[in-house]
Amino acid sequence: MKIILFGATGTLGKAVGKELNARHEIVRVGRKRGDFQVDITDPKSIERLYEQTGEFDAVVSTTGDVHFGPLEEFTQDQFEVGLRSKLMGQVNLVTLGLKHIRAGGSFTLTSGQLNDDPIRLGVSGAMVNGALEGFVRSVAIELSRGLRINLVSPTVTEESLPAYGPFFPGQKAVPAAEAALGYAKSVEGPQTGCVYRIGWSRD
Amino acid sequence: MKIILFGATGTLGKAVGKELNARHEIVRVGRKRGDFQVDITDPKSIERLYEQTGEFDAVVSTTGDVHFGPLEEFTQDQFEVGLRSKLMGQVNLVTLGLKHIRAGGSFTLTSGQLNDDPIRLGVSGAMVNGALEGFVRSVAIELSRGLRINLVSPTVTEESLPAYGPFFPGQKAVPAAEAALGYAKSVEGPQTGCVYRIGWSRD
Repeated sequence: MKIILFGATGTLGKAVGKELNARHEIVRVGRKRGDFQVDITDPKSIERLYEQTGEFDAVVSTTGDVHFGPLEEFTQDQFEVGLRSKLMGQVNLVTLGLKHIRAGGSFTLTSGQLNDDPIRLGVSGAMVNGALEGFVRSVAIELSRGLRINLVSPTVTEESLPAYGPFFPGQKAVPAAEAALGYAKSVEGPQTGCVYRIGWSRD
Repeated sequence: MKIILFGATGTLGKAVGKELNARHEIVRVGRKRGDFQVDITDPKSIERLYEQTGEFDAVVSTTGDVHFGPLEEFTQDQFEVGLRSKLMGQVNLVTLGLKHIRAGGSFTLTSGQLNDDPIRLGVSGAMVNGALEGFVRSVAIELSRGLRINLVSPTVTEESLPAYGPFFPGQKAVPAAEAALGYAKSVEGPQTGCVYRIGWSRD
């Protein structure tokens, strides 16, 4: 399969690339590095990217920003970061990718546990992750041509513990290579409309 | 209690007002009618409204628009309708209401089943409802002064079946008066961070 991997140069993206590279052709897309560059907050940038890559069999996204901060101080602009990047950025990878993806292909997006397992300062991440879950479940029933879509919701990776660990007291981290398996399950398996929770469970 | 009811002039809002009016003071807010008017897509309009109402004990929202349409035809502007109105409109009722709500007060927002129980044309509603769930669960753990927040997720009401019924094949509707009980449970009960599903269940 030819797989377009967004966020390929990040911690998780690198692990996903390594996992999938053994069996597939990976086109690595980053903000400033990789085979191609894109600004996912700009739909025109995504359209240009897909024109450059040509047809493909799968989109895998491990990218998207959200702002972290206390509820009482959250500004409109800070909420917009998550809405424009991690939410609508990934949504647009799907909606704009529809005319470039081959029959039987798949989309795999990334959320996280904050919508079901909240942390302090995480209100925007919770909102965005919940939105991605709803989007993926709903898109799955509207896709045609045997297309599929799933969401991977990993907990903190061991590699990112120095940066994010303090936000997640008591959370057992997972190696990025373990989180990467969720993406392989989505791309290579038959399921659609699923949320693959890696390293945590709901309720 | 003094309760600010947004969406008071709609089908659901009228039923909620009737349920709560027996025991509380209701300030009815609508787009064009009610005791006060507000445009929830405009944070400045919400700020002005709260200055007019003064301090209160509860905010109840039964308002917010989303666009319905096929995934393959959804435009950026159509996604923005739901993000600006039903999502950030209700989010801003909370963030901007924090400095006007009395200790021990509550916020109650409205979502719907589409994020867990999707329908055709419902991708924006699914996204927005999922975002509201994540938001409410996360806000609940950051609120101070004994403040609470819950989400009511009603199915189609019997009163709105003529308009929305065709979108929900096989869905049993509930009377608006039954959906209204979820709001009373949120406002008058002790729980926080909950989603009250009315007339449908998850999984």
